[in-house]
Amino acid sequence: MKLVQFVYKDNPNEIRVGYLSGEDVVDINKVDPTIPSTLIEILKNGVFDKVKKLQATKQKTVPISAVTIKAPIHGGDKVLCVGLNYKDHCEEQNFPPPEIPFIFNKFPSTIVGPNDSIKLKPEISEKVVCEVELTVVIGKTASRVKAEDAYDYILGYTIAQDIGATDWDKNKAMGQLVLGKAMDTFCPIGPCITTSDEVGDPHTLGIRCIVNGVQKQMSNTDQFIHKIPDVIERLSKVFTLLPGDIILTGTPGGVGVYRDPPEFLQAGDAIVSEIEKIGVMINRVENF
Amino acid sequence: MKLVQFVYKDNPNEIRVGYLSGEDVVDINKVDPTIPSTLIEILKNGVFDKVKKLQATKQKTVPISAVTIKAPIHGGDKVLCVGLNYKDHCEEQNFPPPEIPFIFNKFPSTIVGPNDSIKLKPEISEKVVCEVELTVVIGKTASRVKAEDAYDYILGYTIAQDIGATDWDKNKAMGQLVLGKAMDTFCPIGPCITTSDEVGDPHTLGIRCIVNGVQKQMSNTDQFIHKIPDVIERLSKVFTLLPGDIILTGTPGGVGVYRDPPEFLQAGDAIVSEIEKIGVMINRVENF
Repeated sequence: MKLVQFVYKDNPNEIRVGYLSGEDVVDINKVDPTIPSTLIEILKNGVFDKVKKLQATKQKTVPISAVTIKAPIHGGDKVLCVGLNYKDHCEEQNFPPPEIPFIFNKFPSTIVGPNDSIKLKPEISEKVVCEVELTVVIGKTASRVKAEDAYDYILGYTIAQDIGATDWDKNKAMGQLVLGKAMDTFCPIGPCITTSDEVGDPHTLGIRCIVNGVQKQMSNTDQFIHKIPDVIERLSKVFTLLPGDIILTGTPGGVGVYRDPPEFLQAGDAIVSEIEKIGVMINRVENF
Repeated sequence: MKLVQFVYKDNPNEIRVGYLSGEDVVDINKVDPTIPSTLIEILKNGVFDKVKKLQATKQKTVPISAVTIKAPIHGGDKVLCVGLNYKDHCEEQNFPPPEIPFIFNKFPSTIVGPNDSIKLKPEISEKVVCEVELTVVIGKTASRVKAEDAYDYILGYTIAQDIGATDWDKNKAMGQLVLGKAMDTFCPIGPCITTSDEVGDPHTLGIRCIVNGVQKQMSNTDQFIHKIPDVIERLSKVFTLLPGDIILTGTPGGVGVYRDPPEFLQAGDAIVSEIEKIGVMINRVENF
């Protein structure tokens, strides 16, 4: 099941929950008006089973051309990120693969949708880069979960772009990554959340990022240093993961700041992010 | 005006918004049922003026004994913290006063109320400390705000305890503070939010922390290295501050980890946090 959130083009302020059906969308809220109209409310109310059941019978679809796809989830408590989680990305910055998952975060308000722009503020950073990342969506409250049980708490997976101002890590932020990673619009996600049952093992997925038509990142999630169940065990030992929390699982090599010469995002850039079994997301870059 | 959120003891699941009136509470939702029953919804809906107006006329009060005071705000997007913001706290750890505000964060889910317990997980840390902090509550969306305009965006001030696992900063978290600072219950706030008009200049307030009857921290906010308007200017340059975001403004000297011998929280401890013009908050410590 490929879950989406969307608005009708003729009613752009009302978020709806749906799922993809071929080229089109099933409007879950139209099929069953008792189901909440945001994915996070569905998860918090524990009624995701109702959504799953809809799939068994054929439902009327809405043409994709009538809607705008938004971020597949929003309004959660935590946007967690695993840094340095692909071998080649560690190598390109001469960093030894970390023995523990390296965790930082963004704010939930940084999330934008798969059709939204990434907004640069040139007055505070001209060194912004993009990083494509497989992203875990937590479906159920998870505290002190063992790795072998971790998949029970995963709703599914989406694509994220971990946008970051690379000059806001050391001096400008005294070593804390959060400021440079949590500027407005620095977490596009989408286009859909493919549910766990449809993804199977998340450690076998092709992943790539193309900027202005040139492939910049190309790898497979089999390159992970810390696998998803181990990351969930560690995080849920420290704090409670909540429905709607997302975990960006790290980016492969090819990040602009480590290229020679370095490459930074500029207004007008088009970023294509692609992960097998999930889809493609295209975000434009503009100044703000 | 001293804003509170509370529940009736005979209906402990329904949050209400109120304000203190002498020893008692005015139930805002009872006086005007059109006002939302959480402070964040009041701010998001831009109807705080309705609350302010209630004060002008005498309202029926509820005895404080009939209610339990909860965290005065919850459900926001960001819990920001300024580190190293008192001269004596920099000195006790031999750290030069930072030239820029040192920013880290917690998650909104770490917030608990002034009557809630701080929960330790001894299996992951036995080096947890408490730090009393004056806390700014953002009342209006703030982006690219100049210091001279910053007070316009402040709803008021509350007390927070910045609880942190001091062994989760370096090796266990590779230098990022967020894991050790964002364990569950590590951000008690309360008992009320005193509105800006009633506080006046927030840089003249006595502040102290007493653990098990012994005074551990005692200072004044006139010791700030970075004043609140400058912190808001810097933060709102990087990202948009939203209604309900809170900013913990740093802690004075006397923190347990820098004492000789070091002092860490233990089950059974009672932490009293006090800031002039706001009040007193008492949190117990227990194992979880």
